[in-house]
Amino acid sequence: MLYIIGLGLYDEQDITVRGLQAVKKCRRVFLEAYTSILLVEKEKLEHFYGKDIIVADREMVESQIEVILKDADREDVAFLVVGDPFGATTHTDLELRARALSIPTKVIHNASIMNAIGACGLQLYRFGEAISIVFFTDSWRPDSFYTRIAANRQRGLHTLCLLDIKVKEPSLESLARGRKVYEPPRYMTVNTAIEQLLEIEENRGEGAYGPDTLCVGVARLGADSQQIVAGTMKELRQADLGPPLHSLVIAGDTHVIEMEILSAYRIHGASSPGPSAVQCETH
Amino acid sequence: MLYIIGLGLYDEQDITVRGLQAVKKCRRVFLEAYTSILLVEKEKLEHFYGKDIIVADREMVESQIEVILKDADREDVAFLVVGDPFGATTHTDLELRARALSIPTKVIHNASIMNAIGACGLQLYRFGEAISIVFFTDSWRPDSFYTRIAANRQRGLHTLCLLDIKVKEPSLESLARGRKVYEPPRYMTVNTAIEQLLEIEENRGEGAYGPDTLCVGVARLGADSQQIVAGTMKELRQADLGPPLHSLVIAGDTHVIEMEILSAYRIHGASSPGPSAVQCETH
Repeated sequence: MLYIIGLGLYDEQDITVRGLQAVKKCRRVFLEAYTSILLVEKEKLEHFYGKDIIVADREMVESQIEVILKDADREDVAFLVVGDPFGATTHTDLELRARALSIPTKVIHNASIMNAIGACGLQLYRFGEAISIVFFTDSWRPDSFYTRIAANRQRGLHTLCLLDIKVKEPSLESLARGRKVYEPPRYMTVNTAIEQLLEIEENRGEGAYGPDTLCVGVARLGADSQQIVAGTMKELRQADLGPPLHSLVIAGDTHVIEMEILSAYRIHGASSPGPSAVQCETH
Repeated sequence: MLYIIGLGLYDEQDITVRGLQAVKKCRRVFLEAYTSILLVEKEKLEHFYGKDIIVADREMVESQIEVILKDADREDVAFLVVGDPFGATTHTDLELRARALSIPTKVIHNASIMNAIGACGLQLYRFGEAISIVFFTDSWRPDSFYTRIAANRQRGLHTLCLLDIKVKEPSLESLARGRKVYEPPRYMTVNTAIEQLLEIEENRGEGAYGPDTLCVGVARLGADSQQIVAGTMKELRQADLGPPLHSLVIAGDTHVIEMEILSAYRIHGASSPGPSAVQCETH
């Protein structure tokens, strides 16, 4: 049996009881570690599970999937995924490959940014399509999600922006030389996301959003050090949300109850909830 | 401290390790039991936690919230929620009330239908706004979500339909008599949802969807008896997905990989994946 197990948002305690029981009976345990990360070391997980963990990087999952699936028709294998197993397309691939080899699979769900973002104070059922923002490079400044933000906001919907994570990426320079050297991990901050978004708006000029648009930045969701900050893009561009991971929500139309919750997260602090500044974004 | 703890999708094993530890140290434990249900008895949860559980029905949560919050500034109180705490607005109210009373709160996240629906084979990041379908009555046949389905499908997006749950609802007749008598619990099936949807389309006639639109029905998500069935509305209207809870997804445009996964869930069985019938819905 191949168990595909969601680990939840933050650390080793976020696995479900069902998931923990499954891990404990598996012969081999893989940890997917490039579409997202847990904010805890591998060793801590190993100690908690009483199992060795093999880190499955992008290369392994994309080109050596048979290593993971080996003997999974006869013994139990765990593939651990940060968040929920269906947060990323890769795990769908894994399930399809297993199915083709007649290997039974079982998915154990958990929280992921896609539902836990409700903690930001904006109601989950009022979110439109989610988008992903990747790091700009000198030559690659993708902005195809702009129309999706615009379409969400036209309908008054909020937009969850998943921010880029670069883990074990070969440097372009090293690829050119034919010998892979990996860049240090990089995690996009709310600040960088907003800078890129504002650059895109400046180029497009269609007014999908602007410096005065209400946003909510979320850092380390589910951790004790979790931080939620609401403010305009202009304000959040400078806000320090601390270490990774960060996510960003661009608000659509907001309801009274949403504004009431957000008031506690306003960037100027609870003492000056600045309702006027915020309400300029409501319709 | 008020702990608001997500229980996940199915039974007592779906709580996270962090959540279980929190419940175990709480003096009083409430279980919210009207916006969703676990598919397991209260007694099983009590045995698993080693705690008595007070079932919090709609009346308690909406009009006796002080019972739940009593002394929560001095002792630990758990409020258990099926799925994730931010799946329903009520829990937001609870947090706001706690905040007003300066009671510290901690949210412990879990899987909910809002992210676990990715298991149906359609990619989560291609879902638009979710909708809720309530039981039609003779005099009340709400269809305001129709424009939202239409808007999602115009953009090629999938629509998650949350299906009505009626637990401990006073009967209209008993309300008229001034003495509450509760109706037996009712859970909307995929069949009823589709019947209502097709009636609405017949009345509106704007072609947001129709009998040949591809849908995916999901029953008992996360349970061993989980069932996922893909087919046209016409086909799913008759499909038997068994006991509750049911959910429905109305597909937007589908990608090749989505169709590949769905092929295993086709209503005619894996032996006749019926790609032509399905692909008529792709663009």
